[in-house]
Amino acid sequence: MSLIVQKFGGSSVANIERIENVARKVMASREAGHDVVVVVSAMKGETDRLTDLAHAAAQTSTPRPRELDLLLSTGETVTIALLTMVLERLGAPARCYTGAQVRILTDSAFSKARIQDIDAEIIRDDLGSGRIVVVAGFQGVDENGSITTLGRGGSDTTAVALAAALEADECQIYTDVDGVYTTDPRVVPTARRLGQITFEEMLELASLGSKVLQIRAVEFAGKYQVPLRVLSSFEDGPGTLITMEGEDMQQGSMEEPLIAGIAFNRDEAKLTMIGVPDTPGIAAQILGPVSDANIEIDMIVQNISNDGLTDFTFTVNKSEYERALEILRRQADVLGAREVFGDSSIVKLSLVGVGMRSHAGVASLMFNALAAEGINIQMISTSEIKISVVIDEKYLELGTRALHKAFELDDKSGQTVTVEGEPANDQPM
Amino acid sequence: MSLIVQKFGGSSVANIERIENVARKVMASREAGHDVVVVVSAMKGETDRLTDLAHAAAQTSTPRPRELDLLLSTGETVTIALLTMVLERLGAPARCYTGAQVRILTDSAFSKARIQDIDAEIIRDDLGSGRIVVVAGFQGVDENGSITTLGRGGSDTTAVALAAALEADECQIYTDVDGVYTTDPRVVPTARRLGQITFEEMLELASLGSKVLQIRAVEFAGKYQVPLRVLSSFEDGPGTLITMEGEDMQQGSMEEPLIAGIAFNRDEAKLTMIGVPDTPGIAAQILGPVSDANIEIDMIVQNISNDGLTDFTFTVNKSEYERALEILRRQADVLGAREVFGDSSIVKLSLVGVGMRSHAGVASLMFNALAAEGINIQMISTSEIKISVVIDEKYLELGTRALHKAFELDDKSGQTVTVEGEPANDQPM
Repeated sequence: MSLIVQKFGGSSVANIERIENVARKVMASREAGHDVVVVVSAMKGETDRLTDLAHAAAQTSTPRPRELDLLLSTGETVTIALLTMVLERLGAPARCYTGAQVRILTDSAFSKARIQDIDAEIIRDDLGSGRIVVVAGFQGVDENGSITTLGRGGSDTTAVALAAALEADECQIYTDVDGVYTTDPRVVPTARRLGQITFEEMLELASLGSKVLQIRAVEFAGKYQVPLRVLSSFEDGPGTLITMEGEDMQQGSMEEPLIAGIAFNRDEAKLTMIGVPDTPGIAAQILGPVSDANIEIDMIVQNISNDGLTDFTFTVNKSEYERALEILRRQADVLGAREVFGDSSIVKLSLVGVGMRSHAGVASLMFNALAAEGINIQMISTSEIKISVVIDEKYLELGTRALHKAFELDDKSGQTVTVEGEPANDQPM
Repeated sequence: MSLIVQKFGGSSVANIERIENVARKVMASREAGHDVVVVVSAMKGETDRLTDLAHAAAQTSTPRPRELDLLLSTGETVTIALLTMVLERLGAPARCYTGAQVRILTDSAFSKARIQDIDAEIIRDDLGSGRIVVVAGFQGVDENGSITTLGRGGSDTTAVALAAALEADECQIYTDVDGVYTTDPRVVPTARRLGQITFEEMLELASLGSKVLQIRAVEFAGKYQVPLRVLSSFEDGPGTLITMEGEDMQQGSMEEPLIAGIAFNRDEAKLTMIGVPDTPGIAAQILGPVSDANIEIDMIVQNISNDGLTDFTFTVNKSEYERALEILRRQADVLGAREVFGDSSIVKLSLVGVGMRSHAGVASLMFNALAAEGINIQMISTSEIKISVVIDEKYLELGTRALHKAFELDDKSGQTVTVEGEPANDQPM
């Protein structure tokens, strides 16, 4: 008998029928002999409805955070009550708790609170009495008794934190997709579901734009070594297990794969300043004003200087492109740069895999595969388990497919993937 | 400077515009120099929406009470957050609390919990800091931390209980009507708003069917001697003050009025068993099976026996009429009664007034006034401050107007009343 924490998101509990579906999944796990704690989000659309009310009341896009968190927390509270009613109707003893009731203690940073402590005692008692325990995701309570929310992906974080506090055997995140894929199946129909992936790889994929899991939940799970599994709410299957590096591979492959997956991000734009004096501190002088304007910078590339001048390129989110360009033009005048230009028609392709640590030649294989298709690489950035390139956005599909094939990620079964249900995000992996 | 608790019901906070109206009323009291605690209900329609969800989830008309209470409590939580946002936007410092946060401790009788204790400390601190305090009505928390609700009219009860705990100078209940009337203005256009009424009278009126205030809130206010005022959410005016008997009358009339008001109740039906043996315990034998079936009995009249047989009449709610009749027919066989019949085309008219304690002749004036209109009285029942008669329902309007005139309750100004807004109940007084 093991203890499993299961998390279901907003579209999995969008109406009573879907809540029944969730209840049956939970009961199946219970009947398989597991203790089950269920974490649920607000019903799809509910958070938007409440947010609209808040904006109408506050007449600002930033309503008072303490009241906004209290307001939003009612969304998950509704879901836990309904799921518990359904479970009981279907014959499964259950009990539900809000974040405050189960005492998910957080700091007081409303709308992005961090969990500090969880009192797992109540839950353990209920599990001991044979009950399924249903907990509201996304919410907690600070030491003053004010309700807090955990921000984007907060329900995933709640599930992982509960799993850590309860020393659960597995934390299962049910989503609209049936696992983590080698790349977006809508771009590469032969994309393959990964049986297993490491926390590090998942973190890179999440930070590169995959929205199957929130970075924070993955970090949390990695830190507390909670085995995490991504599964589909709508169809059966083993999903993808996210686990520590070096653990035995589940699916019998004795060798670690070279590459776990290919991520892409269409949301970036590139800015370049050329002909700036190559003096110490120049990077800070160029990027300082951009950061000061709260514009997040992703990739940064500085070319080798040969005439005392240097060229400097970086990427920002597309929505910040115009603002960043304006700041950069002002700064070019200050620094006496030759020219400033930008390009928002780019895409970032990234290879991710812990295997590249111990394998040489990954980068050259990647560059060759792109070159073979006539795709020019505009920027390159690497980390220990990742290589990212910026290319013209028109080559997104072609480049992704070329890399998918070159690294032998295609599904060997010859089957192509159909993604059931509405995708939860722009870019499932 | 005094402390006022103000309660606004569901239709007063039905949308953001109305919530703004509430905020302005609250701020006007604040600007007049009072400390203000505001108690609000769920937005109109919200409790029904949540109840429908619960019924769909539980597929029964009686969903599990712990979860139902938790679910319903989200309705008021939404309102307090929105009202606080609006108050802050309009420049009034405010802070809101759920029942659990302000620690309205109740027993664990879900859906009809009784308040046991209120920790007024937090509220006092906020008031001391110059804040308006907004509290969710209708809800509390039991000693296990489970959310409870107080049942029908629960927000009124919350307001009165807070007023008692804070030793407030007045508890103001804002409703759809601008006070308590001598009778329903829709039946008697010359009905007069009462400036003042005693708790006892208000209790009788509430138990006779007036829904301006819930019995429980009036009882609570009487017990803790909290001055209670009924006011309109939608127009200005002094409303009606409900107060202890013997306090100085507000409006300068030195003499207590004979009659405070006339209530009527169309929801009753009458059942009669005639020719039953007049033996000790016969009432219990007739009524026992009716009570056992959880049918509430209101008036009971037993006629004088002259041939060893007696006739027995009582009233029940119309919705229970058929069921009660069936039980009574079976019981008639057991007891050997001559006949059982019933009548659901009746109405109960009641005169209420503490003045009748010290004035003789109220009953005869009442009976004469009805007789003068040719109205036959079918049953009579009296208490210390009330006389009720059952008459044919077709005489409801005629009888009410005749009594209103006979007891000089008509508005002397010659103005007739128009009830603004949607009536909150079937029978405002």
